[in-house]
This record gives sequence, C-alpha cells and structure tokens, in this order.
Amino acid sequence: MRKIPTEQEDKNRLDEFSPTDFRYAVDDLKPYLTEEAFIRYKVRVESALVKVLAKYKICSKGIAEEISKAANSVIARDVYEEEKRIHHDIRALVNVIRNKVSDKAKPFVHLAATSYDIVDTANSLRFKEATENVLIPDMLKLERVWIDLAVREKNTLQIGRTHGQHAEPITFGFAVSLYVHRWGERIIKLRDTLDNLTGKFSGAVGAYNASSLFFNDPEKLEKDILSELCLKPAEISTQIIPPEPLSDFIHTLVSSFSVLANFSDDMRHLQRSEIAEVGEAFEEEQVGSSTMPQKRNPINFENVKSMWKAFMPRMLTVYMDGISEHQRDLTNSCSQRYLPELLVAFDSSIRRMINVSSRLKVDKKNMLKNFKLNEDKIVAEPLYIILAALGHPDAHEYVRQKTRDSITSGKSLTRIVLSDPALKSYLSKLKPLQKDIISNPSQYTGIAAKKAEKITSFWKKRLIT
Amino acid sequence: MRKIPTEQEDKNRLDEFSPTDFRYAVDDLKPYLTEEAFIRYKVRVESALVKVLAKYKICSKGIAEEISKAANSVIARDVYEEEKRIHHDIRALVNVIRNKVSDKAKPFVHLAATSYDIVDTANSLRFKEATENVLIPDMLKLERVWIDLAVREKNTLQIGRTHGQHAEPITFGFAVSLYVHRWGERIIKLRDTLDNLTGKFSGAVGAYNASSLFFNDPEKLEKDILSELCLKPAEISTQIIPPEPLSDFIHTLVSSFSVLANFSDDMRHLQRSEIAEVGEAFEEEQVGSSTMPQKRNPINFENVKSMWKAFMPRMLTVYMDGISEHQRDLTNSCSQRYLPELLVAFDSSIRRMINVSSRLKVDKKNMLKNFKLNEDKIVAEPLYIILAALGHPDAHEYVRQKTRDSITSGKSLTRIVLSDPALKSYLSKLKPLQKDIISNPSQYTGIAAKKAEKITSFWKKRLIT
Amino acid sequence: MRKIPTEQEDKNRLDEFSPTDFRYAVDDLKPYLTEEAFIRYKVRVESALVKVLAKYKICSKGIAEEISKAANSVIARDVYEEEKRIHHDIRALVNVIRNKVSDKAKPFVHLAATSYDIVDTANSLRFKEATENVLIPDMLKLERVWIDLAVREKNTLQIGRTHGQHAEPITFGFAVSLYVHRWGERIIKLRDTLDNLTGKFSGAVGAYNASSLFFNDPEKLEKDILSELCLKPAEISTQIIPPEPLSDFIHTLVSSFSVLANFSDDMRHLQRSEIAEVGEAFEEEQVGSSTMPQKRNPINFENVKSMWKAFMPRMLTVYMDGISEHQRDLTNSCSQRYLPELLVAFDSSIRRMINVSSRLKVDKKNMLKNFKLNEDKIVAEPLYIILAALGHPDAHEYVRQKTRDSITSGKSLTRIVLSDPALKSYLSKLKPLQKDIISNPSQYTGIAAKKAEKITSFWKKRLIT
Amino acid sequence: MRKIPTEQEDKNRLDEFSPTDFRYAVDDLKPYLTEEAFIRYKVRVESALVKVLAKYKICSKGIAEEISKAANSVIARDVYEEEKRIHHDIRALVNVIRNKVSDKAKPFVHLAATSYDIVDTANSLRFKEATENVLIPDMLKLERVWIDLAVREKNTLQIGRTHGQHAEPITFGFAVSLYVHRWGERIIKLRDTLDNLTGKFSGAVGAYNASSLFFNDPEKLEKDILSELCLKPAEISTQIIPPEPLSDFIHTLVSSFSVLANFSDDMRHLQRSEIAEVGEAFEEEQVGSSTMPQKRNPINFENVKSMWKAFMPRMLTVYMDGISEHQRDLTNSCSQRYLPELLVAFDSSIRRMINVSSRLKVDKKNMLKNFKLNEDKIVAEPLYIILAALGHPDAHEYVRQKTRDSITSGKSLTRIVLSDPALKSYLSKLKPLQKDIISNPSQYTGIAAKKAEKITSFWKKRLIT
Repeated sequence: MRKIPTEQEDKNRLDEFSPTDFRYAVDDLKPYLTEEAFIRYKVRVESALVKVLAKYKICSKGIAEEISKAANSVIARDVYEEEKRIHHDIRALVNVIRNKVSDKAKPFVHLAATSYDIVDTANSLRFKEATENVLIPDMLKLERVWIDLAVREKNTLQIGRTHGQHAEPITFGFAVSLYVHRWGERIIKLRDTLDNLTGKFSGAVGAYNASSLFFNDPEKLEKDILSELCLKPAEISTQIIPPEPLSDFIHTLVSSFSVLANFSDDMRHLQRSEIAEVGEAFEEEQVGSSTMPQKRNPINFENVKSMWKAFMPRMLTVYMDGISEHQRDLTNSCSQRYLPELLVAFDSSIRRMINVSSRLKVDKKNMLKNFKLNEDKIVAEPLYIILAALGHPDAHEYVRQKTRDSITSGKSLTRIVLSDPALKSYLSKLKPLQKDIISNPSQYTGIAAKKAEKITSFWKKRLIT
Repeated sequence: MRKIPTEQEDKNRLDEFSPTDFRYAVDDLKPYLTEEAFIRYKVRVESALVKVLAKYKICSKGIAEEISKAANSVIARDVYEEEKRIHHDIRALVNVIRNKVSDKAKPFVHLAATSYDIVDTANSLRFKEATENVLIPDMLKLERVWIDLAVREKNTLQIGRTHGQHAEPITFGFAVSLYVHRWGERIIKLRDTLDNLTGKFSGAVGAYNASSLFFNDPEKLEKDILSELCLKPAEISTQIIPPEPLSDFIHTLVSSFSVLANFSDDMRHLQRSEIAEVGEAFEEEQVGSSTMPQKRNPINFENVKSMWKAFMPRMLTVYMDGISEHQRDLTNSCSQRYLPELLVAFDSSIRRMINVSSRLKVDKKNMLKNFKLNEDKIVAEPLYIILAALGHPDAHEYVRQKTRDSITSGKSLTRIVLSDPALKSYLSKLKPLQKDIISNPSQYTGIAAKKAEKITSFWKKRLIT
Repeated sequence: MRKIPTEQEDKNRLDEFSPTDFRYAVDDLKPYLTEEAFIRYKVRVESALVKVLAKYKICSKGIAEEISKAANSVIARDVYEEEKRIHHDIRALVNVIRNKVSDKAKPFVHLAATSYDIVDTANSLRFKEATENVLIPDMLKLERVWIDLAVREKNTLQIGRTHGQHAEPITFGFAVSLYVHRWGERIIKLRDTLDNLTGKFSGAVGAYNASSLFFNDPEKLEKDILSELCLKPAEISTQIIPPEPLSDFIHTLVSSFSVLANFSDDMRHLQRSEIAEVGEAFEEEQVGSSTMPQKRNPINFENVKSMWKAFMPRMLTVYMDGISEHQRDLTNSCSQRYLPELLVAFDSSIRRMINVSSRLKVDKKNMLKNFKLNEDKIVAEPLYIILAALGHPDAHEYVRQKTRDSITSGKSLTRIVLSDPALKSYLSKLKPLQKDIISNPSQYTGIAAKKAEKITSFWKKRLIT
Repeated sequence: MRKIPTEQEDKNRLDEFSPTDFRYAVDDLKPYLTEEAFIRYKVRVESALVKVLAKYKICSKGIAEEISKAANSVIARDVYEEEKRIHHDIRALVNVIRNKVSDKAKPFVHLAATSYDIVDTANSLRFKEATENVLIPDMLKLERVWIDLAVREKNTLQIGRTHGQHAEPITFGFAVSLYVHRWGERIIKLRDTLDNLTGKFSGAVGAYNASSLFFNDPEKLEKDILSELCLKPAEISTQIIPPEPLSDFIHTLVSSFSVLANFSDDMRHLQRSEIAEVGEAFEEEQVGSSTMPQKRNPINFENVKSMWKAFMPRMLTVYMDGISEHQRDLTNSCSQRYLPELLVAFDSSIRRMINVSSRLKVDKKNMLKNFKLNEDKIVAEPLYIILAALGHPDAHEYVRQKTRDSITSGKSLTRIVLSDPALKSYLSKLKPLQKDIISNPSQYTGIAAKKAEKITSFWKKRLIT
C-alpha cells in the first residue's frame, strides 16, 4: 500500500528543484531509488558480507548478527553527517555502523571490501528489484490495457496513414496491436537485461588483492556473498563492474520509453480537431485551457512525449560513463546518481499511459467519416495490382493517370475505371473477392483483424497469465 | 544569508530521487528555481498584469492591490490541491487567487491572459534573475580565483604537453590563463544571452486576439506589463515565445560547463601519481579511500567532469523542444520543468571549482622534475627551426634523425648536434638568445609569462572591479 | 557557375558510403568543404605565412613567391601518398611543397609554424567563407521566399492551433511571419559568430616558443599573417584555438536547422489528408507512392525533418571536442573532419526548403472549411473575457459549462449564451467591435495581419536590400 | 581480395565531403554499404519476390528469370536518372527494371509490393551481411590480438590505478583481459541482435492488403520470399518494420565502439611521457610532429577515441527515428541513409585497433619503475585489512595516520608499522603469505595472473576455434 505523505512532507516537496521529486514522483519506487533507499541497499550488501564472513569462520555468527542489526538501523542523515567530516561516502557509512557495534565487532565491518564492492552491488540490486517489482508489473498492466483495446477494436475500420496521408484501410485494433507487440517484446528484453546486472567483491582493482590475503578461492567467497543477494558476480571487474550490462539495461529502458512516445504521438494526432478519432477522457471539472473553455487537449499524451524528450538523451551519459580510465576513474560517480530519475520518469509515464489508454475514447463514427473522405481513391492500389497481375503492361502508370483525371474532374475513380472500354478484357477476369473490394474499398483491410487477434493472443499467452 | 535547513527538512531531503535535491542542491538558488519559487514568479507576473490593468483603468487601483496582495500569499501546495481537481496548473493558480479576493475583484484576475503569457514570462524572469544574482556572481568568483592562480604561477616552469607527450615548455600560469580567458569570455556571452530572454502577453495563439478586444494597441499593453518586470516582449510569439533565445542561453551555459570540465580533466591528469604537479587540498580527517588509506584522489575534479557528463546531453532536449507544432504543442512542458536542475548542477559545480581551485596545491618541484625528464629532447624544435631559418635545406629531417640517434644511443641530443661538424657553419651564425635556448631549454617558454600577465590583466579590468 | 559532373564522376559518386557525397551533396560547397578544398585552404595559410616572412625579411620576396606558386599546384592525392609514408598529414603537405621548390626555398616552407597553426586557421577560414558565400546567401533567399509568402497570405484566415486543437483564429501569413522572424534572427546570429572564428600562429603549445626565436613581437607576426587571410588571432591559444567560438558557430547552425525542421513539421501536418491546407507542388510525372498512385506525400518536408534528426545530435560531438587535455590531445581531430558534412546537410536542406516553399500550394478554401468546423466554439474565449471585464464574477466557469452544454445538446454556443436571460445586463454593455466578434468569430484574429506586415517589413529592411 | 582503386577513383574520392568516403573508408564494406551496393540489395529483394511469385504460379519461371537477370544489370546511376524524373526512388528502380524486360514480364516486377517491403528488407539484409562477413570477423581478429597480448603479459607486474592514482598492483595481462571479456561479450551480443533484423512483405500499411487480393495466406507468402534471403519476417509491421531490432543492433554497435574508446584512453594515458608503460609502434619514416621531431604521439588511440566521439551521438538519431507517426511518416528515410557511415567508422576503428594492438610496445621496465614509486605505501591496504581481521578495533584509522606520518616524515610506512610496539601482538599472528606480502608488495597482485588466464581461455574456447 502506498504511504500517504503528510502535509508537511508535501510542502517540503514543493521546495525542490527536480520535478522527479514532486510532480512526477512515484511513491512505490521510493523503497528502491531514493537516497534513503540507497543507504538501505548498501547496508544489505554489508550485511551479506559479514554473514558470509561468519560462514567462513572469520568472525562469529553473533558478531555478524550484531553488525547486521546495527546496519539496519542506519539512516541516511547520519551517514551524510559523517561524510561531511571525512569526505568519503562509504567510509562514512562504515564508521556509522562501527559506532553502533561493540569493539569486538568493529573490525569485521566492511572487512576486505572496497567501496565499489558495495556501491556497484547495491546499484545492481536496487535497479533489478525496482524493475522486477514495480516497472515490469506496470509494463504488464499497460500491456493488458492495450491488448484489451486492440481486441475490442479489432474490427473497427480506420484509414491507414502514411506520410499523414490516407493510404489503405486497416482496423484500429490492428494499429494498436503493433504497440502490443512492440511493448511485449520490450518487456521480455528488459527482463533479460536484468540477469546481467551483476555484483562484485573483487576489491580495489578487481584482482581480489585483499580477499586473497584470507581466502584460497576469493572468487568463491564473492559468489557466496552475492548469492545472499540473489546476484551473480561479474566475470571480471576492476574497481567497478564492466559497464555494458548497465548500458544494455538503460538502452532497453530508453527504447521502451520510445514505444510510449510513439503511441502518444499517434494518439495526439488522431485527436486533432479535424481528425478526432480518439480522445483523452475528460473529467467533469477538468479545464482544457485557462482561456479557451472549449479546448480538449491531449495533455497526457503530450506529457509522455515530453518526458521522453527530457530523458532519452541521458543514454549519452551512460555511453560516456562506459569509459573509465585504467582500473577506474571516478567520473561516473555523480552522473550515475542521476539514473534513478530515469527509472522514475519512465514508470511515471507508464502509469500515465495506463490511465489514459484504459479510458481512451474511440470515435468510430469519425473513423468512418475520415475513411469515406478518400474512399474512392483508395481503390487505386488494388486496382493497379490486380490489373498488373492480369497482365496489364503498364498498370501503375495507367492508374496513376486515371487518379489524376479523377482528382481534376471530380469524377469517381472507380466509375472512370470500370467504364473504361480499354479495361473490359481485364475486368472480366476479376475474382469475386477482387470485384467486391473494388466496389467496396472498406473491405480492403487485408488481414488486419486477423493479425490483431493473432498478436494479442500471442502476447496474452506469453505475458499475461 | 543561507537558511540552515531543519533536521526534519534534511531527513525528507534524503527521501528524494534526484541528487539535485540533496547532494548537489544549492540553497541560494531556491528562491528562483524550486517549484515553490516558480509559483512566486507566476504570481509576480499576474500582479504585473493587474497593476497595468489598473493603469489602463480597466479595474481600480484598489482591486489591483487586493489581487496582488492575495496572490503573494499563495503557496504551491494550494495550487497543487486545486490542480488535482481541475487538471490545469495555471487555471488552478487563478482559482486559488480568485478564492482569496472579493467578488468585485475576481473578474480581473488573469484577465485577457493565456496560461503561457504567465509561464513563459515567469520562466524568462526566473532564469534571468537566477543567472544575474547567483550564477554570474559565482562565475566571477571563480574567475577571480583563476586570475590569482595564473598571476601567482606565471613564471612557474612547466612542460607543455600535447597528446599527453612532452612538447615545449610553458609556465603553469600561462596554462591557467587559458581558462581565465575562456571563462571570462563565457561570462560575457552568458550575460548577453540574458537580454534576449523575453516575456509575452500576446494571448493564446500570439495574435493578441483577447487583448485586442479591449485595447487599441495591445503590443503597448504587453510592453507595459513586461516593463514592470524589467523584461522586453518577444518580437513575435505564438502561444509561446520563440525557442531560440532559451536555446542560446542553455547552449552558453553548457559550453561554459565544458570549460569547467576541461579544467577538471587537466588537473585530474596533473594529479596522477607519476605526474603529481598539482593536488587537491586534503582535510586533516579526510579519507582517500575506504580501503587504501594512502590514496589522494582528485574527487572534486572527477565530480565536476561527472556532472558535466550528466547534464551536457540535455542540450538535445532543448533542441527537440525548439520544435513545436503550429501555434504550439505542449510537448515542451514537462521537459522544460527539468531546466532548473541544469542551472543548479552548473552552479554547484562552479562552487566546487572555486573551493578546489582556491586551495589547489601546486608542486613546483615536481613540475621541474618532469620538465627535466625530456629536457634534452625539447631542444629539437628550436634547433630545427633555427637551422631552417639559417638555410639548412632539410632541417626537420636532420633533427628527426638525430633525435632518433639520441634515443637509441642514450647520448644527449644537444651534444650530438653541437658536435656535428656538418653543422658548424650554421651554428656559428646563432644569435645569443638562440644559443642560450639551445643550451638551456628551460628558457624556451616563448612569451608564456607575458601572455599570462596580459590575459589576466585584461579580464581583471573587464570583469573584476 | 556550377560544374556539371561527368558521367564517370557520377558513377564513382554512387560507390560512396555517405549520402552527403551523393544524394545530398551541394556542388557549390565543394570549393570550401571537400578534402581537396581543405588542402587548398591549408596551402593558402602556408602562403600567407611565407609572404609575411618575406615582409619581415626572413626570406626574399622571390622565395615567398616560389613557395606560394608551388603550394598552389599541390593536389590532395599527392599529400595522401606522402602521408602514407610518414603518417603525418601536415608534414606530408610540407614535404610535397618542399619537393616542388629550390633548395634555397625549402627551409622557409612552414618555418616556425606548427601543424595546427595551419589546420585551425584553415578550418576557421573555410567555415567562414563557406558560410558567407554559400550558406548565408541561401538563408537570405529562403528569408525572401518566406517574406513573400507571409505578405501574400497575411489576410488569409486560418484557425490557430494549440495541442493540435482548434484555438483562436489567425492568418496564415501571420503563422509564416513567425518563421520569417526566427530565421532572420538566426541569420544575424550566424553572421555574428563568424567574427569569432579566429586563426592562430602561436606554435606547438601556444606560447609562441618558436616564433619568439626570431621575432621580438611574435603576436604582431601572428596578426600580420592572419590579416592576409582577413582573420583575427585568438586572444590566447594552446596548440589549438579555444573551442568556444566553433561551438557557438555550430550551435547557431544547429538551432537554425531546427527552424527548418519546425516549419517542416507544421507543413507536414497541414498537408494531412483531413486538414489539407497546404501542399507540396507536384510534378506532372511525379510518383507519390510505388504502390498507391493517389498519394501526395510531403516528402520534402519529411526530408528536412529527417536531415535535422541525422545532424542535430552532432552538437554533442562538438561539446565533447571542447575538452582537450593540457595543451591539447588529438581526440578532436577526426571528429572535426566530419563538421563539413553538417554544413552541407544544412545547406542542402535550405535549398530544398527554398524550392518547396516558393511553390507551396495554399488552399484557402480548406483553411476556411477547417475554421468553420469549430467556429461556434471559438466564441468561448472572447465571450468569457468580455464577461469578466464587464464584472461577471465567474465568467470562465460560466462559459466552460455553457460550452459543455452546447457540445452535449448540439445547440449553438452563441445562441445559448445570447439568449440566456442571466447575461442580459452584461450583453447590453458590449462595444460594437465586441458584438461583431461574438457574432462573427472570423474577425477574432487580433492583430495577426498587422503583425505579419510589421515583421516582414522589419526583416526585409534589415536583411534584403 | 581488396580491389585497388585506380588513380582516377582516388582523385575523385578526395573531392568528397565525408571522411568516411576517403580517409576512413573500408573497401571491404563497399559490397554492402555504398549506394551502389544498396541498389544491388534492393534488386536481390525484387528477385526473391518474383522467384516466389513463380513458385506460386502467379507468373512463369521464365518470366521470373528474365526479371532477375534484368534486375542484376541495373546500376545506381540509371535509377538516379529515372528518379530525377519521377521523384520516387523505388518506383524509379522498378521502372528501370521494367524497361529492361519484355511486355509480358513487366507487370510482375514489384507486383503487390510496397516500397518499404523492398527498402526495409534490403537494409536488414545488408546490415546483417556486412556484420557477419566483415565486422564480426574483424572483431574476432581483434579479440585474438588482445587474447595474445593478455596471455603474453599475464605476469607482467603493473601498478593498478584508480582515480589516476596508484592503488594496488595487478598484472598488465589482467588489465588487458578485462577488454578481452568486454569485447568478447559484445561480439556475442552483436551476433544475437542480427537474428532480429527481419524483413517484411506486408504492404503499404502492414495489413497485407495487396497480397491478400491473391493469396489466402499472405503471411506464408511473406515468409517464403524472405526465406529466399535467409531472413525472418517481422511478427507485425506497418509500412515499415518495428524499430526496436535496429535500435538494439545499433546500440550494441555503439556500446562495442565504447570498448575500443576505453581501451584507447587507457593506452593513451599509459603512453604519457611520465608513465611510458606502453607505446604505439613507430615506423622508420614516421613523423611525430610537424615541428617537434622528438614526439611519439598515440595518434591511433586518439583517432579511435575521436571516431567514437563523432559517431556515438548518432544513437540519438536512431531513438528519434524509432517514432514514426501512424502507419509511418517518412522522417526516418534520409536519417537512416547515414547508418552505413556508422558501420564503416566502427570497422575502420577496429582495423586500426588490430594494427596498433598487435604491435603495441610494452615497457616492463617502466611498469616496474612506476610500481616502485609508491611501493611502500601500497602496503597500507593489506596491512589495515589484516590488522582488522586480527581484531584491531580501529585498523583503517590507524593505518591512515601512519601513512600520513610516513608521507610527512619520509620514513618507510612498513618500517614505521613493523616497529610499532603497539602492533606486536597482532604482527605475531601473521600467516606466512601475509608476512610475505607486507615485506614484498609486488606479490600483492591477488589472483590477477590466474584471472587473466581464465578469462582468455574462456573466450578463446568460446569464440576462436
């Protein structure tokens, strides 16, 4: 259950710089991605370490438990206070824990670990858990909403558009099922990237220098500590884990974000006054414009597109952070601290999209009206192809010219063509389906409805159980 | 004076996602760039509007004052509450103000204005004031620190490096004066871009449709309102002001940030163990590494470079936001809400740089030691050029080969050359300065010291009074 | 006059990787921006150097002329051949020149210069000349075309759109004049950035080490050489000139490109089948689609938007190249070689835009038809504002509800409102202009036409003589 | 075998704008990625189509062969000529083929296909084949070179560096094996992304509208055509295939490029004059600097880093192109034409890296010398950890202070500590290995050598057979 923020908290919130901390915050992500949460994750890693030290008999079980318990009571503020004094964040955490345990226990806090054994492991862990526990469930919710929409509208006639121009008819459910597929595929890919988010306990330069002092098989020790956290170790690391798995993870996230942005653009344009095929649901008391009360603006779709523009370029930071000199420089440290914002912004946009997609108004009447606008010209494609298949030597050019004649004269293209004596021999060979389509282009939707069904069934089975 | 945050505030702070709201926050920027501040700026714009309405006798002075006073008491939280109900941020603000005034005053709140008359004007105003009052003063402080450093070290011999290789000698003050110049020039440019941050009161689509209902010269009205805020109107606008001035402003900010990043990279590398020509000052109690107590890491320089990597790519968001369909789409709305973060990050980095630059340790002994490493080879350039100028037909190739011989044999290049009988006729024509330099390459610093003086004097005069 | 490429050249062209070398090449830019041209520019710089050396009596005038003449006969291929041998591009150029002159002249080729004295100076010069001679003239041509369009359509009624929704009416000429302003302003800014593209002759590390061997005032020498090329020297440099002026130049270019992209997006959407207010001119023999002969696609507007997407992100390369370690690393060398592509792509897009804008079909009938769609609702804004100004305590909310009633009931909003007894007292106070607008919303265009005139006059005077 | 370009071709080459077409061209990629090659790929797709049409008895085998043969003789120039006339690239290609076949065959050229059935399929095919046949073989070559280097240097002592500061010792082979791992992992990932590069034959809006006119199972037809080209069909498409697979492919390529850039940065810095642990091999006649004959610059490493800076940001274009309105807009068309450049630049950098890595000079003497610099301080980490493990309550702080003392007094840290009576009780409990390491820190390399062996063996087995 989501915690309701107190009035005091809400007030402080608005005295913040980043919209991620007020306007677009997702409370469900706080246990993973705030600074307070980060401390808790680092503490979990320190606890795993000492637990395994006890297993290896380096310290007693009692000491391990003492340290674990003390670590769990650390709050971020205390660490920050200590950091002000000593200018080192992880050593500050270690000191705060040490100050809470007996002298006998003190030496075993953080023993043989280097800062980034803790930081990188904690980051992998929290990104993984935030994604598994919040992002992917939200993604699945949206997938369900889109599947329902695609199924419901699988037979709804809509004109297909390319270049913003009427092309050939489809169904609206078919159009939506493209997103069902793209989104479903991203969910799978995102899940896959989580497996590669690893931890490390290889020490200051990755060669297990420190742990080798005590353990014959320091890689085994590393594996044991990380398996306490359900993580695998990096195959090889320096002070930090190799950057590629994180880069793959963020790329997959950004490219998933693009799917939302694309859907938003589609809907924004379908909501244009002249097109009006879909509409965001509107609250009774909602105000469209501070000055134009008649407006019905696609603000949620605009919002998602805008968030994408704000966050997509951050991929470049990830690429730049992929370069770290020798056994590491620290120039990826504070840039990496901004990654949580990206996860929050993405999740906030998914939730907005769930909300707006599940209440999307589809105006079938306007879809039909728009289709009718160029119904007569739509026949040009099937006509040219059928003529070609029947052996007409110049079908594309023939139809192109007749279309121009039709536009100039205002006469129906179908009529012009069907009454052209030069075509008689070809027209007589038309199959029934072909004849039907030419006289009723609304049937020229190919396998749109069938494909919508196939795709939605596939993803329902694959992802929604 | 900076307000000391209460313990409660500090705690909440750490329960936030964005480092800009805890780790890298700049309290001095809160009056300009938090959400609370944004409301106050919007309120200032609404007040300017109603004040001018009174001047134009649309409403009474008393009403204008009533509204102004009410507006000033608005807090962000109330606006957010109302926004939840009606889903429109500016109309929410208007409602909150209206609820605080008499029925007689109500109609004049926001009269004839559209949302973005308020939002764009408020943004220009706060970016301008934050820059004038905080960023530029901080930039000037850093300029002063760098000028002092350059002057102090203007005669300190240092080997100049290209490709990370020893090239020809300079002085450390000369190296710093490059940054004095680049930074000074950016300050001027940044100031210049502020003049173009304009406001607008041209209504929903920029044609002054609403204000034309009441005013013969609505452009005059716009000018009058904006001059209350010391802003100029955009020459032409749609619902929003043209994007180029903001884009120029942010570009100048980002390119200024690059100067910090470049200085940081230089210093990071000069602090390498093997080079050790400079060092960040180190606190008595500071911890260099959680596990390697001997480390002296350039963490502040690394931090600034890292912040640059986090924020530089946001320029792309600004470019994308520069495209808005027709009289505007809203896809620049939430992306623009992230711009304050960029200003905070930049200012936070400037302050860090002031701190670290003013206490920078310069190790002249190591500078000299490094210079000595290749002193003998440095003579190659002046030698080849002098020989060429004296008419040697193949001086570059000659010196290149002798340099190779010197490396292979371990003999001094100067000695090899000076004792080469083939050169005798040339060497006899050397001028005293030339002779001096060849026998003492530490004098081969060109006009480094003089240039350091010239550049620092120029910028001191230009910027620091 | 543009050189017609031979059939052979055209064939080779298509065996290339970069579309900038075939599909989007601009032959008029070849004298500035190809590799062959680059050599010619570097040769110009070497010639300026030797000319000034003669002035200073370092060598004879005859030798200077001999070198200049030899340099002018160098072709890129020869330099590349030599570079293969010695792996240094500028030394290769120097060798090729030296091989063409007498032994007496040899020593004075490139005397006292470092590679980047030549390269940076040549780049500034060619970017400046390409911009002055080709880009800006092309920009001015487009400005003229847009001015003509704005003037011609200044009274053409069009519905203004925000969020893709009908808002308040404007004129199409007003909409275009926004671009006249944005584009005009960019032309001025781009010109301004050219003044800061400087050259340098400060040697290998910027301290005039080499030139100080011979000249008492090496800054004077630098100034003299550069004034031969109509360039100013950088105030201070290292091996390379400071990066900010180039960064400002490219930023201004990219932000100008965004103006083209924005115009393109506007037009693409106005060309949508349902809107159809404008159209790209269509050739008699043009094919809209390989399979749908009826299509009229906005391919040129799409093309320009696409080019912007391809080139806008390159600004990031420029920012990254703004960081060069110590007196320079070379990691900006090949990245900078890609800058010419950006200029070509931009110019190619300007030319496309000139072509398509000058033949743009404006469909006034459709503009009117679209305006009529929501004519009745447009009255909401003026109505609410007038009511408010007349003292109605809740005008916005009143009109918002009546608009909802009108939508639900299908009744005219004007009629509902005008016949509402509750409004009687207000309506009786309407001024004639206000009454007119409420009964005929097509007059509610504010000062659109006047502003179009004002803006176009201003820019005509300022830029077009 | 690589074709040697004629002198004429080379000359023309240099009259080009893009360095990808001269300086960084890779001739082996010409069969895949030039415009000429693109035409050949499109022709292959048209041939596959007609071949399957014959299988389905839509046309005769003879006609299919006639068309195939004609198609194979098309050259790009002819298509460009026709495109000038009709302004449509694929219809131009179709016309050129049609003009080469009998009237009977004409109708079957491109029958039932839409342009992007051809374009998208051809692009997937050529990117796939270029990667399989050139990029991946080149990547494997580099992997082999790096494996050899890592194996050869697995025992070479080197100081590990973090923050550019000496940290704990490793071996150079261990450092290189990090790259062996990262690169090997990218090769696998890049291969994986190829499987998802699909084709399509679903017509103008993706609903198989046209093919449904003739075929009961148009998805089967699509599958048959694509299997002629060894491609799978997209699960669902619009006019174009979904963007994610291409986006994954380019991301993997860019992140692989980052591995090269990181290696380059490492080597550049190791080549610094003061560090000098590695060096690029230098040709007998190579010139290091046009003016400083003594220079040995890491130009190839700088080049690769620079190429990365030029091309990495293009990922953003790919993300932007991932958004296409409705059943597609065309704004990804020319931006996509620039993708081949990226593949060429990447491959060119791989080849450069193979060349420079295989001849890398490793200076063990300097590595040892640098290690010795801080040998005494290195002992701090093992010392503090051992003390802690032995129960010292404040080991980190103790060692930190002794290190400071050592730095201040110039005395050896080991000596200070070993002679401290307070430590006696702890020191007596040291195990032999621990004692060894403290008196000889060069042994403190953990499992560096073993790990180098393990990683190189793994990747050798996995990739190199």
